[in-house]
Amino acid sequence: MPRYALKVEYHGAPFAGWQRQSGQPSVQGAIEAALARLEPGAHTIAAAGRTDAGVHATGQVAHADLAKDWDPFRLSEALNFHLKPAPVAILACAQVADDWHARFSAVERRYLFRLVQRRAPMTHEKGLVWRVQNPLDLEAMRAGAQHLIGHHDFTTFRSSICQAASPVKTLDEITITEVERADGREFHFRLRARSFLHNQVRSIVGTLERVGAGSWEPDQVRTALEARDRAACGPVCPPQGLYLTGVGYPQDPFSG
Amino acid sequence: MPRYALKVEYHGAPFAGWQRQSGQPSVQGAIEAALARLEPGAHTIAAAGRTDAGVHATGQVAHADLAKDWDPFRLSEALNFHLKPAPVAILACAQVADDWHARFSAVERRYLFRLVQRRAPMTHEKGLVWRVQNPLDLEAMRAGAQHLIGHHDFTTFRSSICQAASPVKTLDEITITEVERADGREFHFRLRARSFLHNQVRSIVGTLERVGAGSWEPDQVRTALEARDRAACGPVCPPQGLYLTGVGYPQDPFSG
Repeated sequence: MPRYALKVEYHGAPFAGWQRQSGQPSVQGAIEAALARLEPGAHTIAAAGRTDAGVHATGQVAHADLAKDWDPFRLSEALNFHLKPAPVAILACAQVADDWHARFSAVERRYLFRLVQRRAPMTHEKGLVWRVQNPLDLEAMRAGAQHLIGHHDFTTFRSSICQAASPVKTLDEITITEVERADGREFHFRLRARSFLHNQVRSIVGTLERVGAGSWEPDQVRTALEARDRAACGPVCPPQGLYLTGVGYPQDPFSG
Repeated sequence: MPRYALKVEYHGAPFAGWQRQSGQPSVQGAIEAALARLEPGAHTIAAAGRTDAGVHATGQVAHADLAKDWDPFRLSEALNFHLKPAPVAILACAQVADDWHARFSAVERRYLFRLVQRRAPMTHEKGLVWRVQNPLDLEAMRAGAQHLIGHHDFTTFRSSICQAASPVKTLDEITITEVERADGREFHFRLRARSFLHNQVRSIVGTLERVGAGSWEPDQVRTALEARDRAACGPVCPPQGLYLTGVGYPQDPFSG
């Protein structure tokens, strides 16, 4: 059975998350249903990141095993046809080796969090950003973020239901930039690691927002990290600003 | 009765357009209903541009007359509260002179049209851009657009139901830029004029897309303009890529 890697974009709002769950819409379920339109029967696909309800992706990667030899471009077009009207799109498709695995072959995950500071409610970007009304201090958030880069025990920034074997992770990057907009300020948090704990990005961004708002001193982020205590974390921010933007592999399956 | 200018942002999808129509949701109707929550009774507001169904705004301007003296910031906050959950937001509010008129005092309208070229259907930006699948030639579209700048009889690019007294308008600007995106190409058309005919922007963008696709030569845009014949126009493009981004007045009411 030939194996195909899929680069997937989706709007998280209508889904209970990536993972298939009985009786609830999921991104995995939507793609598996589209696969069943191409090759009848049950399909089970695996993804690099099992995103939560409401979380978006612009560069999720999954793999699927099919019986037939498909031209990858035709496969992506056929899947996009059958995925409609679900807000899920196959951006790229490539045949990969039988032992290539979207999750276990991955060596890097990249996330973006979009935070908008403005008074008025969002209209076009409703559900696509986290809006706060209080002013935010970019330099303070950057100073707080510095404490989190590197190899740490991230127990503080980990959901109580996280199933990872260890709370120790290496955060390779956390960059905060301001993006120009006329109606307020928009901040982009970009995080990069081999893997993340459950709710780690949202726990970090929620904590850094408190720093930006002036409720926390930047140094308190270090204190919270060193506490290794979930109770020391700031508020976990909502899912709708979060995007899985890319997954790294030793060799990019889509570059060929 | 003090008069207030409102800068309004909205998502066009749920509305039959700006203008109040019995039995149909409209942006004007939504704002008038919110005003009635503040001061009971009938309200009638006027706007600079009466956008069509599905057309968005990031900088529409309207004016409203109220009985009470409102602090402009408090008025915008109260309206945003009562507008929820409609995707309409008051971005700014200012008190203006009694004879100031959102429509008749305006000396410039600015529109943006977002056109995305990519194979896959849109997810996050569904309803916010016009997606085409065929490759587009930016330089050809620019060459075609040049023929439209200036003072012309725009009968070709005017809806048959347009109520303007004259088809002669001055198009001050039409700029086409490419905006970086990973999953295809995005083109921004920016048009600026004292006023526009009904469907003029969508008729122009639809025609220029045909030039970009190679179906039309850039010079055919001039031929079509000179024909002064609606039948010579290219296809009118869909509304969901169109944004009213700003309105110019001799003095900006929101800058004070």
